Amino acid sequence: MKKIVIINGPNLNILGEREPGVYGEETLEGINEWLAQEACALGLELRFFQSNVEGEIVTAVQDAGDSDGIVLNAGAYTHYSIAIRDAVAAVSAPVVEVHLSNVYAREDFRNVSVTGAVCKGTIAGFGRDSYLLALRSFS
Amino acid sequence: MKKIVIINGPNLNILGEREPGVYGEETLEGINEWLAQEACALGLELRFFQSNVEGEIVTAVQDAGDSDGIVLNAGAYTHYSIAIRDAVAAVSAPVVEVHLSNVYAREDFRNVSVTGAVCKGTIAGFGRDSYLLALRSFS
Amino acid sequence: MKKIVIINGPNLNILGEREPGVYGEETLEGINEWLAQEACALGLELRFFQSNVEGEIVTAVQDAGDSDGIVLNAGAYTHYSIAIRDAVAAVSAPVVEVHLSNVYAREDFRNVSVTGAVCKGTIAGFGRDSYLLALRSFS
Amino acid sequence: MKKIVIINGPNLNILGEREPGVYGEETLEGINEWLAQEACALGLELRFFQSNVEGEIVTAVQDAGDSDGIVLNAGAYTHYSIAIRDAVAAVSAPVVEVHLSNVYAREDFRNVSVTGAVCKGTIAGFGRDSYLLALRSFS
Amino acid sequence: MKKIVIINGPNLNILGEREPGVYGEETLEGINEWLAQEACALGLELRFFQSNVEGEIVTAVQDAGDSDGIVLNAGAYTHYSIAIRDAVAAVSAPVVEVHLSNVYAREDFRNVSVTGAVCKGTIAGFGRDSYLLALRSFS
Amino acid sequence: MKKIVIINGPNLNILGEREPGVYGEETLEGINEWLAQEACALGLELRFFQSNVEGEIVTAVQDAGDSDGIVLNAGAYTHYSIAIRDAVAAVSAPVVEVHLSNVYAREDFRNVSVTGAVCKGTIAGFGRDSYLLALRSFS
Amino acid sequence: MKKIVIINGPNLNILGEREPGVYGEETLEGINEWLAQEACALGLELRFFQSNVEGEIVTAVQDAGDSDGIVLNAGAYTHYSIAIRDAVAAVSAPVVEVHLSNVYAREDFRNVSVTGAVCKGTIAGFGRDSYLLALRSFS
Amino acid sequence: MKKIVIINGPNLNILGEREPGVYGEETLEGINEWLAQEACALGLELRFFQSNVEGEIVTAVQDAGDSDGIVLNAGAYTHYSIAIRDAVAAVSAPVVEVHLSNVYAREDFRNVSVTGAVCKGTIAGFGRDSYLLALRSFS
Amino acid sequence: MKKIVIINGPNLNILGEREPGVYGEETLEGINEWLAQEACALGLELRFFQSNVEGEIVTAVQDAGDSDGIVLNAGAYTHYSIAIRDAVAAVSAPVVEVHLSNVYAREDFRNVSVTGAVCKGTIAGFGRDSYLLALRSFS
Amino acid sequence: MKKIVIINGPNLNILGEREPGVYGEETLEGINEWLAQEACALGLELRFFQSNVEGEIVTAVQDAGDSDGIVLNAGAYTHYSIAIRDAVAAVSAPVVEVHLSNVYAREDFRNVSVTGAVCKGTIAGFGRDSYLLALRSFS
Amino acid sequence: MKKIVIINGPNLNILGEREPGVYGEETLEGINEWLAQEACALGLELRFFQSNVEGEIVTAVQDAGDSDGIVLNAGAYTHYSIAIRDAVAAVSAPVVEVHLSNVYAREDFRNVSVTGAVCKGTIAGFGRDSYLLALRSFS
Amino acid sequence: MKKIVIINGPNLNILGEREPGVYGEETLEGINEWLAQEACALGLELRFFQSNVEGEIVTAVQDAGDSDGIVLNAGAYTHYSIAIRDAVAAVSAPVVEVHLSNVYAREDFRNVSVTGAVCKGTIAGFGRDSYLLALRSFS
Repeated sequence: MKKIVIINGPNLNILGEREPGVYGEETLEGINEWLAQEACALGLELRFFQSNVEGEIVTAVQDAGDSDGIVLNAGAYTHYSIAIRDAVAAVSAPVVEVHLSNVYAREDFRNVSVTGAVCKGTIAGFGRDSYLLALRSFS
Repeated sequence: MKKIVIINGPNLNILGEREPGVYGEETLEGINEWLAQEACALGLELRFFQSNVEGEIVTAVQDAGDSDGIVLNAGAYTHYSIAIRDAVAAVSAPVVEVHLSNVYAREDFRNVSVTGAVCKGTIAGFGRDSYLLALRSFS
Repeated sequence: MKKIVIINGPNLNILGEREPGVYGEETLEGINEWLAQEACALGLELRFFQSNVEGEIVTAVQDAGDSDGIVLNAGAYTHYSIAIRDAVAAVSAPVVEVHLSNVYAREDFRNVSVTGAVCKGTIAGFGRDSYLLALRSFS
Repeated sequence: MKKIVIINGPNLNILGEREPGVYGEETLEGINEWLAQEACALGLELRFFQSNVEGEIVTAVQDAGDSDGIVLNAGAYTHYSIAIRDAVAAVSAPVVEVHLSNVYAREDFRNVSVTGAVCKGTIAGFGRDSYLLALRSFS
Repeated sequence: MKKIVIINGPNLNILGEREPGVYGEETLEGINEWLAQEACALGLELRFFQSNVEGEIVTAVQDAGDSDGIVLNAGAYTHYSIAIRDAVAAVSAPVVEVHLSNVYAREDFRNVSVTGAVCKGTIAGFGRDSYLLALRSFS
Repeated sequence: MKKIVIINGPNLNILGEREPGVYGEETLEGINEWLAQEACALGLELRFFQSNVEGEIVTAVQDAGDSDGIVLNAGAYTHYSIAIRDAVAAVSAPVVEVHLSNVYAREDFRNVSVTGAVCKGTIAGFGRDSYLLALRSFS
Repeated sequence: MKKIVIINGPNLNILGEREPGVYGEETLEGINEWLAQEACALGLELRFFQSNVEGEIVTAVQDAGDSDGIVLNAGAYTHYSIAIRDAVAAVSAPVVEVHLSNVYAREDFRNVSVTGAVCKGTIAGFGRDSYLLALRSFS
Repeated sequence: MKKIVIINGPNLNILGEREPGVYGEETLEGINEWLAQEACALGLELRFFQSNVEGEIVTAVQDAGDSDGIVLNAGAYTHYSIAIRDAVAAVSAPVVEVHLSNVYAREDFRNVSVTGAVCKGTIAGFGRDSYLLALRSFS
Repeated sequence: MKKIVIINGPNLNILGEREPGVYGEETLEGINEWLAQEACALGLELRFFQSNVEGEIVTAVQDAGDSDGIVLNAGAYTHYSIAIRDAVAAVSAPVVEVHLSNVYAREDFRNVSVTGAVCKGTIAGFGRDSYLLALRSFS
Repeated sequence: MKKIVIINGPNLNILGEREPGVYGEETLEGINEWLAQEACALGLELRFFQSNVEGEIVTAVQDAGDSDGIVLNAGAYTHYSIAIRDAVAAVSAPVVEVHLSNVYAREDFRNVSVTGAVCKGTIAGFGRDSYLLALRSFS
Repeated sequence: MKKIVIINGPNLNILGEREPGVYGEETLEGINEWLAQEACALGLELRFFQSNVEGEIVTAVQDAGDSDGIVLNAGAYTHYSIAIRDAVAAVSAPVVEVHLSNVYAREDFRNVSVTGAVCKGTIAGFGRDSYLLALRSFS
Repeated sequence: MKKIVIINGPNLNILGEREPGVYGEETLEGINEWLAQEACALGLELRFFQSNVEGEIVTAVQDAGDSDGIVLNAGAYTHYSIAIRDAVAAVSAPVVEVHLSNVYAREDFRNVSVTGAVCKGTIAGFGRDSYLLALRSFS
């Protein structure tokens, strides 16, 4: 069974409360439970990590380096964290960048992905399905 | 059964011949056949369109406006075609932008998606699987 | 009687369906019929052309080169088509650029007119009246 | 009878003397008289205002706020006066921006219209006819 | 008793009429009366000045140079008036820049304060309270 | 009694030691004690938080989301933390951005406030009084 | 005998009529006949293609992919067509970019060659001789 | 005897008081008297004008249009007044731009001269001698 | 004996594993041991700190403020951390910025050093010797 | 017999040693001898000049001003030497700019030709044949 | 008697031949003789230097460091030579920058003066009189 | 014994006289003598070169191409000399870029190193010790 680590960044811990019009009403816990069930059927075993701290995400990516894949929603850090980019580039596990919303349809500064260049691919705009599609790409 | 239209843009007609290191060795016909089979299982009926001409892609998007969804790989036009963007914005069918390669990992001018802002979402970097993941997002 | 050619660009063929809040509910055919009637009273004879294809608009401008005037709504191509600009600069007929909406009040990329520099003048923001005012400028 | 106010900005008071190759040989008074006559036939009553002072144009726009329409040639201030822009945005009367010359065909800094974004529309490049076309848009 | 001069720039004379959603429904006269009363309690004596003319604001700043403080809402001129900036830099009285709205939350060009660099401080976003907080900074 | 949370960012823990010419000689503890006393008179109850870690400030803003107001001096993070900006936008409590120094009078990169666009207002340049004025805006 | 394909882009079909001061008075047909004669002596066999449509040029480049060389004057598309660039990069035949005029001596936007980066070389400024020099580079 | 008009812009009316380290301790009146005396010896008759209002400087330039020369220190307006630039371009009298300080050695925004492009020449950095050198250029 | 603190930033904890082609095969522990030995001979006593968290590096710089010198490899934070820059500017100990690789020879965003402006000097491109050269600069 | 001067700039004196992958293995002397022979057949007489010093190239261009043509490979100076550009513009002899490599396919700064705007034409990317093609353009 | 050194840069040695429409028909020798005569009357002794080589101008400025003043027309180097700028900043003699033409009225790249920031002042646009006015500033 | 060449660029010949606050009071000769002594102990033999002429530095780098290392302080040319950059890239000897001052702490244009990208490493900010540390990197 492949081991996949799902890493979520800043403000994703308050999903459901935060701008529900943009991000939906489900909590991160709710999404994670649903993903865990779906993953089973795909033959994937999931580990979850969330932090608001950029450097802890760097460490989490490093720690997941020998997994079979990383699903990374770095949130706001997507747009400026060279530190997370370097961590992604440093590990051998393939990383898929995901976003709940279509970042291209929002503010200009959300059109820039600093981390995207070193990921395997990107999936954005499908709400919680963005994570599931990323999991499918590993199965 | 949902009707989905898959629209491919310039130079995708020579997939398999074109820079196989970047785009893979399979032809567009091969990918389309495979997708048609996969779509069946997902309860989707596919129609395919390819053109090297920007304006014909505009028309194709308009014509697909009453389908249940459009999977759009506008190729190079992704990066500068306001005409295609306007077509996407004009139709009511949801449009998912796909790319074979991870456009973020290539030349700077490929980091800009003019069409992305009016799509529902984006999937890039998974080779032919990018199309399949897009189809799944509609099923 | 002066001969005037009215050239419309991409997505103007779906006027009436497309974002009616921005572009109004009338179809291009409706506008053209109304213009033909108004032109009569102004002593103008109209020819109409529409295409979604940039290069066909280039050819249409060339073909209208010996008319008494061209009314050009190049749509999205206004903002990036150097090819159409070159065609406008190449013909001796005076060209008036028109837009249904006030392009200055929309996205930044619609503030740039590549074609405007070689036109005789510009009229924007008056809905279908933009065309009529352009016709009057020739009468 | 609709009341329209025509507001002219800096250096338009010396029309006829100033670069006749660009702006023509007629004086502003000459143009205004001609416009007054034309307006009659269109069922419009005109009031005229000219000033070289940005702030006086701001006040003139405010004062014309309850007219049926404003024709504004803000001259050089078009390109940088946020103060006039704010005045235009503040009044309920529709404002049409006009220019004698085709500002797109001149220096780069004349391609930027700060005021245009809050106007109803723009007409440029037709000499004194630019004003007349603007009047027609109100009739 | 300290003497403070409150200087208001373009379009603030039509407060109450102008975009009430952004600027509130109270008139400048109303705000000034309220401020005069509040100032009393703070041991401050107020003088008021308003003009739509940039150069008259320059002069007003110069004239207030020997007061105990200036509260300056230069309105639109905030974003481009080097002339007012030079006047502020030239006087010895401390100047506090105020704005009714949060200029950071509006158009990009309102994020630039040309005058701010030579002021003592800035207060923005609190409606008429912005003025009162500025007065308190002097008491 | 209204509950207000005062959140201070990086390097504000060494106030008094750090560039006293710019930031003054008082320590953060000194300022906080003084503010607590002043707050009493204003009917406000204060809670204090300081961290050098961007993500901990994100969390602190989230945790203060149900307070009656947040006074935020994000220090250097003001200029680039989209993560803190997202936290501010996510909470319902109004946030006032404060700075000890007039950030407009310093390096270019301090003129940009990433967080300001989603705050209620900004107060900068009054030393420790910036905090007090912010508190008054809540009373 | 080597097979060379000469591909001309938009507005080159009206050579002779179009701005003769810049592009000369000879027609494209005239140039092609002259080139065909010269090619003979160089042991080259020529095929000619011209289109105003970007996508047809893409296809023409693809179709010429197994020739011994392509001489490409993409006209205005030179400056923005990533689609043609991708076609050039995709074929194995060497491509030489030519221009009649010295594009460096004209408008700024003509200084940018999007296609040039993937060509073998560039020749510009020699009128019809630009084509002949390109042919010689293949002989 | 040649007639020369000396036009001074914003904040030059408070010379002597304003940043004496940059602009010197002499008043504008003092400079003007000294210039009048020097002009005599050069066979020049001087007229003086000063205003803080951009539009009044526009008018002053227009009014001096039939003099033998204009010495223009537009102060801060130098850097952004297209209106004054247009006035300078409109008059036949040659205009010499002068500055007391070396504008190149100060803030970036003082390196840009909007008016300079249409003047005959520029003299900057010599204190009051800048005016005298300008007068000599006319004698 | 002088006390020197060596502070390493994000991803330097996985030296040896991370892109060995760029960063070498030695671990951070290995480098630190070697440095400690070399430092002895130079009369320097070393303390080591590493963190992936920007704010912890801010604190570490503050804590090292009374040492005789700081050797700082802020890794990716070099390029955007104004917070670390402020910490470096706040302490009296001289700080030498070091990099293992020649940052000028890599991506554009690595050419910008936000922290460099407030350091005493910079040493880059010598692998582990960069640290040793920095130590020598203190001896 | 026409007299042509071939001027080579910095680092072309070490052709053959310098990055042979980019510039080939032949020395400048070798190329010059070959060109001299070819020139004979074309009825051209060649003079050769090489210098690493920008100002000596300026002088060389001036000195060749009365020749029948100049072939200029200004090397690195192509991209920033306004001095050489001014020399080219000053002489009446036509100047053809040549480059061994396709400068469009290399670093961004090599895409800018400061000298190209005042040359007759440009030939780049054909190795030593670039010079020969330039000679043919003169024959 | 004050000693003044006049330093001329690239292409000024061919004055009279070079674009006489811009630079006049007089040779540099002619100008120098005329200046020497005028200088006498002003109590100035002149030394002349001209070179096309940037580094020789650097040396000339250094060598003139103990003169009473330098008149510098660095020609094209004005716009990019940081080396000459550093030389000017290094010497104690005051330096006046002069230009024959009004550099503000020409190409954009001539609007930038790299050397101007460290000069005492600038005089441009008066033909040979620019030098004389500079000399007068020293007398 | 390794042979190292130390190459100094423009204005370094007047070290000691030039802005001693920035560059120190020691002459270049003094520094060179001290370096020669230190080099002995490091087993290095030094050769010295200085020129104000860019092209002579190009030649000096070429001539040092078979040494064991080059220490290059290109002075002002560091920031714009592509010619020197090309020379550094062309030679096989490793080049270390040095600066006396911390270039990051000075004007913006000194933050750009054109030559740095092709050097082995950079050392800046340590006064004459910058050279010594560079020498040590070779020993």
